[in-house]
Amino acid sequence: MRVQVVIIGGGPAGMLLSHILGRAGIDVLVLERRARAHVLSRIRAGVLEAGTCEVLRKHGVGERLDREGEAHDGIRVLWQGAEKPFTIDTLAETGRPMTAYGQTKITEDLYAAHDPACVTLIENAEDVRLYDIESEAPYVTWIEDGAQKRADCDWVAGCDGFHGVSRRSIPESVRREYERVYPFGWLGVMSRVPPLEHISYAHHERGFALASQRGPNLARYYVQCAASDRVEDWSDDRFWSELLARLPEDEAGKVTTGPSIEKSIAPLRSFVSEPMRWGRLCLAGDSAHIVPPTGAKGLNLAVSDVHYLSEALIAHYRGDHGLIDRYSQTALARVWGAIRLSWWLTTFLHTFPEETEFERRLRQTDFDRLNNSPAARTDLAEQVVGLPL
Amino acid sequence: MRVQVVIIGGGPAGMLLSHILGRAGIDVLVLERRARAHVLSRIRAGVLEAGTCEVLRKHGVGERLDREGEAHDGIRVLWQGAEKPFTIDTLAETGRPMTAYGQTKITEDLYAAHDPACVTLIENAEDVRLYDIESEAPYVTWIEDGAQKRADCDWVAGCDGFHGVSRRSIPESVRREYERVYPFGWLGVMSRVPPLEHISYAHHERGFALASQRGPNLARYYVQCAASDRVEDWSDDRFWSELLARLPEDEAGKVTTGPSIEKSIAPLRSFVSEPMRWGRLCLAGDSAHIVPPTGAKGLNLAVSDVHYLSEALIAHYRGDHGLIDRYSQTALARVWGAIRLSWWLTTFLHTFPEETEFERRLRQTDFDRLNNSPAARTDLAEQVVGLPL
Repeated sequence: MRVQVVIIGGGPAGMLLSHILGRAGIDVLVLERRARAHVLSRIRAGVLEAGTCEVLRKHGVGERLDREGEAHDGIRVLWQGAEKPFTIDTLAETGRPMTAYGQTKITEDLYAAHDPACVTLIENAEDVRLYDIESEAPYVTWIEDGAQKRADCDWVAGCDGFHGVSRRSIPESVRREYERVYPFGWLGVMSRVPPLEHISYAHHERGFALASQRGPNLARYYVQCAASDRVEDWSDDRFWSELLARLPEDEAGKVTTGPSIEKSIAPLRSFVSEPMRWGRLCLAGDSAHIVPPTGAKGLNLAVSDVHYLSEALIAHYRGDHGLIDRYSQTALARVWGAIRLSWWLTTFLHTFPEETEFERRLRQTDFDRLNNSPAARTDLAEQVVGLPL
Repeated sequence: MRVQVVIIGGGPAGMLLSHILGRAGIDVLVLERRARAHVLSRIRAGVLEAGTCEVLRKHGVGERLDREGEAHDGIRVLWQGAEKPFTIDTLAETGRPMTAYGQTKITEDLYAAHDPACVTLIENAEDVRLYDIESEAPYVTWIEDGAQKRADCDWVAGCDGFHGVSRRSIPESVRREYERVYPFGWLGVMSRVPPLEHISYAHHERGFALASQRGPNLARYYVQCAASDRVEDWSDDRFWSELLARLPEDEAGKVTTGPSIEKSIAPLRSFVSEPMRWGRLCLAGDSAHIVPPTGAKGLNLAVSDVHYLSEALIAHYRGDHGLIDRYSQTALARVWGAIRLSWWLTTFLHTFPEETEFERRLRQTDFDRLNNSPAARTDLAEQVVGLPL
């Protein structure tokens, strides 16, 4: 078969890109390795920047977001030793709202909006391979129901995440990878108990903790754990007592504990691969970069990549090649801004096994400065709320 | 003999403190280890915060400063790869001026203002020792012309610098020390050649460089060197070629080279000792904290310490003990702000032997953010110009 654009990956980045390109009359094929039901079963939280919401609305997938999304006031920090919670009030500081709306729901909205007349979506596409991406006639092969298939195209969009094949199709001699692996992980616990009223980040000498909500009777908590810890190391009792120890007394008093219904450990990593375009392959989202969850920038970056890439491809098919030639540079400028913010927030809120007393006092000094300096608060709030598209 | 306050150290901190206290009618003795001529021969540059100038003026030692001090526009950064010099315009950002005026001149002004009727100054006071500082009747001994002397007092002010006896008179069990030793030094060269027009900080992958002026035909340059380097490792030729390699081409073209008339290597260190008051001993200036020269905060911190300490002692002798009880806390809040700024500027402008590509790109992202974000520039400018007293 022959299409204009093959998109590798049917997660939120790939589905949004296919949706935008399909509506613009571009002939698109999406190859997803798993079944749709599997993709939709991935539970992910989400805090959306104003620009992310605008992109979704502009392309007709903002209706449920506007109905069910909840205003997100900013970052509430419970700081050990501080008299009261400290909030980066992003709306007040920047005039731009943020919205709490799960990534899972966005994926649902995109699959619901999928129009097979515009976009061909192939599920269970195994062993995807990319060929001739340095030429103007690349092609992609995959295994479908045991048979090898091939699609010729003008462009390949790599939206297949950190472990996908797309990034690795760029020669190693070309790729530059930048990475910071943090010396800890997040132990997450889900429990059918009423959550705290506000999403709260806690900094404590014992480590970071996070209180969040998944529903009126569904709480999601995290505690920083050692990178080498395994889930079996953490009984429910150990988890709750560690969580409570890291919260100020009056917040700890509001926590309802209960049996965990899910428990998992996620590593934290910052990662960028450059360039984001090589020949006729363009990367978008996690295939090109990973942020730690602190700051909730992952999905927002995927959407901004897709925004730039869709505009660039649409312009290209109208004869204007400037945007696609600058795609990597344009996307990376915003990526590095979010990488910096996520790195800073992670460093600020966690404790590091190797940190010195000097570094601890610098962190306290940063906290004091945020309390005392409007300029410092604005600078942080602008990064949290998201750089302009 | 008996006085109210013994001040250890006749550098700018001790001399300013003695001057303020003497004018307030407090009976003061200053003990200086060296001869006055030696103290005055120490050549030190200086960029003064507005608050520092106000303190000097308020106490009658601002006349020559106002006559000879030069407006200092902010920090001019020559960044490798940037199209043009980048300036943190502190005056425009904060409305508060900075003044270039050598520390050596301040010391001269303070010695010129010294009034033997108000303040007793003893030079060549050797082997100073502090006793009973935890009691309300401390005393100090020293050797003068071979004979041991003793002064009883109410308070001891430790203004004797990093290597002085004062800090070490606080028991080790009480002291908490915070330190960052940077893995490089500054190689400084003085030459009788016309300097560049502006003080300029250069960031380059080969390392940091600084161009400054001591007079119309006296240039002072620095290049970052390895911590283990010795002056003998650096011929004039090696120095000039390294300096020129670190400057953008058009700036390098303006540099006049010539024989060095002085060459030295200084280590870079951030250091804070807490508390700054213990019993009847109060520390001020370098005896309690050291900053790297990047940001020029050392003398400004000494003056702010002296400002807080002099107000606290004057209030104490009027029967109000609140300020002296809070002295350590008040002074340290400002100290840590300057420690943070000096640390950040040092980290931002230098290259570190152990730094990763990820960290290099974060630095570039910080630079890009300073270029693009008014809030980030204001936040930095406020710290450079100095936190309010």
